[in-house]
Amino acid sequence: MAKKDKKAPRPKAETPKGFRDYFGAEVRARQDMLARIAEVYHRYGFDPLESAAVETVEALGKFLPDVDRPNEGVFAWQEDDAAWLALRYDLTAPLARVYAQHRNDLPTPYRRYAMGPVWRNEKPGPGRFRQFYQCDADTVGAPSVAADAEICAMLADTLEAVGIGRGDYVVRVNNRKVLNGVLEVAGLLDPADPDAHAAERGIVLRAIDKLDRLGPDGVRALLGAGRKDASGDFTKGAGLSDREIDVVMLFVQSSEIIASKLGQYAEAWAGHDLVQDAHADALETHSGHFWNTEALDHLAVIVSGSPVGQEGVEELRVIATLLEAQGYGPDRIVIDPSVVRGLGYYTGPVFEAELTFQITGDDSQPRQFGSVAGGGRYDDLVKRFTGQAVPATGVSIGVDRLLAALTATGKTDAQASGPVVVTVMDRARMADYQKMATELRSAGIRAEVYLGNPKNFGNQMKYADKRAAPLAIIQGEDEAARDVVQIKDLALGAQIAQSASLEEWKANPAQTEVPRADLVAAVRRMLGDA
Amino acid sequence: MAKKDKKAPRPKAETPKGFRDYFGAEVRARQDMLARIAEVYHRYGFDPLESAAVETVEALGKFLPDVDRPNEGVFAWQEDDAAWLALRYDLTAPLARVYAQHRNDLPTPYRRYAMGPVWRNEKPGPGRFRQFYQCDADTVGAPSVAADAEICAMLADTLEAVGIGRGDYVVRVNNRKVLNGVLEVAGLLDPADPDAHAAERGIVLRAIDKLDRLGPDGVRALLGAGRKDASGDFTKGAGLSDREIDVVMLFVQSSEIIASKLGQYAEAWAGHDLVQDAHADALETHSGHFWNTEALDHLAVIVSGSPVGQEGVEELRVIATLLEAQGYGPDRIVIDPSVVRGLGYYTGPVFEAELTFQITGDDSQPRQFGSVAGGGRYDDLVKRFTGQAVPATGVSIGVDRLLAALTATGKTDAQASGPVVVTVMDRARMADYQKMATELRSAGIRAEVYLGNPKNFGNQMKYADKRAAPLAIIQGEDEAARDVVQIKDLALGAQIAQSASLEEWKANPAQTEVPRADLVAAVRRMLGDA
Repeated sequence: MAKKDKKAPRPKAETPKGFRDYFGAEVRARQDMLARIAEVYHRYGFDPLESAAVETVEALGKFLPDVDRPNEGVFAWQEDDAAWLALRYDLTAPLARVYAQHRNDLPTPYRRYAMGPVWRNEKPGPGRFRQFYQCDADTVGAPSVAADAEICAMLADTLEAVGIGRGDYVVRVNNRKVLNGVLEVAGLLDPADPDAHAAERGIVLRAIDKLDRLGPDGVRALLGAGRKDASGDFTKGAGLSDREIDVVMLFVQSSEIIASKLGQYAEAWAGHDLVQDAHADALETHSGHFWNTEALDHLAVIVSGSPVGQEGVEELRVIATLLEAQGYGPDRIVIDPSVVRGLGYYTGPVFEAELTFQITGDDSQPRQFGSVAGGGRYDDLVKRFTGQAVPATGVSIGVDRLLAALTATGKTDAQASGPVVVTVMDRARMADYQKMATELRSAGIRAEVYLGNPKNFGNQMKYADKRAAPLAIIQGEDEAARDVVQIKDLALGAQIAQSASLEEWKANPAQTEVPRADLVAAVRRMLGDA
Repeated sequence: MAKKDKKAPRPKAETPKGFRDYFGAEVRARQDMLARIAEVYHRYGFDPLESAAVETVEALGKFLPDVDRPNEGVFAWQEDDAAWLALRYDLTAPLARVYAQHRNDLPTPYRRYAMGPVWRNEKPGPGRFRQFYQCDADTVGAPSVAADAEICAMLADTLEAVGIGRGDYVVRVNNRKVLNGVLEVAGLLDPADPDAHAAERGIVLRAIDKLDRLGPDGVRALLGAGRKDASGDFTKGAGLSDREIDVVMLFVQSSEIIASKLGQYAEAWAGHDLVQDAHADALETHSGHFWNTEALDHLAVIVSGSPVGQEGVEELRVIATLLEAQGYGPDRIVIDPSVVRGLGYYTGPVFEAELTFQITGDDSQPRQFGSVAGGGRYDDLVKRFTGQAVPATGVSIGVDRLLAALTATGKTDAQASGPVVVTVMDRARMADYQKMATELRSAGIRAEVYLGNPKNFGNQMKYADKRAAPLAIIQGEDEAARDVVQIKDLALGAQIAQSASLEEWKANPAQTEVPRADLVAAVRRMLGDA
């Protein structure tokens, strides 16, 4: 063995590029968040589904059969029997495969949630990893928009369950059909020839998406001939006529009006953790002039010339009515025609959850936190497999973004989770120290005995520091003879932890002596105080 | 698009061979079990680690550099930059890489736990999957056997935390060094030439492992010339001399004596869920004749001629002393020289957790459930990377086996988790039904509205049945007019669920009418009764 070791060069201890390790508090914070989300999903009747990480390339789809190696965007490999397997790149493709495979055994509608890693074979970058978590909930086989409304309500409940206060988020709802209606009225979409004007529609969608940044005039320019930015660069526009631009801008403008009212409302309630009664009052006060109603009336006028647009507005009206009946007012869920993201992919209602509070960015500037979840209706889930169109609607939570939001606002209590460290002053009395740790654990307190070389007490304290231990327990010969223990408050004493000798430690006022029999009670008291 | 669809053949909706999907209750039961395990590990000061599923083949090790495709036993693929990546096959290899990579930032000793899927590129078979869960806890950098004792105590606590009652399991502890001592005394291991007699030692290990099945005479035959089984097949033996056989049998016999005493003890306490006091009494009653002490005395005599054997016995004595001081008596953790599994891999103490109750096997015969966890000390964890030997000890829980044990004994409450289903009698009153579900959820009750086509009431009942719904809520025109709801107890009414008409359902005594305002209270009462 020794000879072999010498021959082979030592491997590098490194993750592959674009992969990373997650440690301690980070793992627990994510697990805790996902468990809270799962609890809400469960209460809504959604069932967990855990498919394997590996699928056949054929089942994953979207890859060309004629390339030598079908790994565009996925991690794929060829089996000995010539089949290509790949790591899943999202949780929707496996859902399609699972539903098609097990549809006779599954209930219809099938409400399922899934949480787990997915893999993307893309160029990694700062903050961009090739393995990351997704957290999806979908309802398969329910054509009614009641299923979409349910997902929106569940999304609001989920955000509150993980610690986002009411007023700190909003779920915005739009409908692909309304946008199609607007495009039809503007002459950019012909139901009889859906492929015509596709390029212009793309430019229009991107222009609407830039309203926040460019303002109405900038968007108007992009809809027409084009726009020159501050640096002099010219972006070619969609080349619409003035009439066409007016229709689209009416739509864009209606979004803006609603958004500004939303801002006023959010301001009025900012910082309030609304209790149920206050919430009910607010609804009553605002009754008769909900923005949801206003938004829908605006939209109905704009798309009055388009059957699909009218259908879209009616769907949104049903969603708003269902949600309001359940007490989800516009302080939580709003109809918002400015939601454009994902409209290219979805076929009906789309939704997006945004956090409305500001955080301090990496550049020390305050900024809006932004979107943490999105979803919508897509109606061809399993058609690839079975030939039958099956309607589906669902939402995906950006696990890393939501976790970052909770961390930024101090909503994860990960920092305070270090164990009480029982130090080893006398190697021969290890059993006594272990007994202390056992007693603490039996009382539900996280505790451990120092298991490194106990010779150097400073090392034990450095260890406790690295472990973020709130307290250290010390019992040397003297304390043992008197049947007492020293309890060191490390939060108070942290500043001298790096250098102090045992004697300095003992002199520190952050140290308390208690009878051995009172260990558990004293530790509990000190942890409670901390 | 439609043209393309026609050209491409439909993909098969199938998992790749050897992979499977996990649904609903199964997923929740595993998540629940793992969360309970994590809680115990956390309380012992262990920190979670979540490494990526993907590692470099180089970091995973154990693969030959000269084969064209290094995928022996793993799923591997080559990146565009020629690097080979692979899915991890266990959680220990990533721990080695992580500790080597981050050792300057990690505390030493480093206690970590990890839970997650691993992948094996092996021929799948019945019940053998190519992706399965592992759940490991390891302490890296602690040379003291106090770390091994801690893992044994934690393992006992873990089994109780997931629902295995005291008396229904036992953690057995052995030491590789003791076995080496026995082999040395028997003349089968020469410390000066460790490679000599390797083949005989292999036969001896396998023979000892078969004591349960073959009895002492069978083992004796295998140690000598060989053994002919009932079918006449001959297995060649180790060819030991009578003296050598006597030494090994003394060891084997000591195991047997201890095992039989363990059996008596287990019998005496079978079925009792020991409270702390009773346990303390039991320890007192048995004090002075612990099997742990007996076992150690036996072993000390056998290996008295071997320094490494003596060292092994002393290590076990320290472990037993530490555990007994913490209240872990031989009703939970025993020194048991018959533990052989894994002795080839480990370098010091080894442990194995066994469930001692009987279950009914697939063949309707009662059988011992057997091992659900194992581990031990291995001292070369990161040497491949750093050249430095770092001691480590750890345990791995067989997630699927332990979950199967909990399911077999009814310790998972997965079956009762279906939602209350609110049926849709009048499509126009969807908002009212949604409001009922919202009220139930706000009271913490799992509830959902039927979102399929509501036309056929029988389908709604079949759906509720498929969902394992405990109750269904019904409010038609008549009930709405009288402001009441019907609550159907589906457990009671299950037998007619497949065929009954609405009228038959309403006549059923398992159906209760309550005022609409009492819905939540009535459901809560009925679920409590169930």
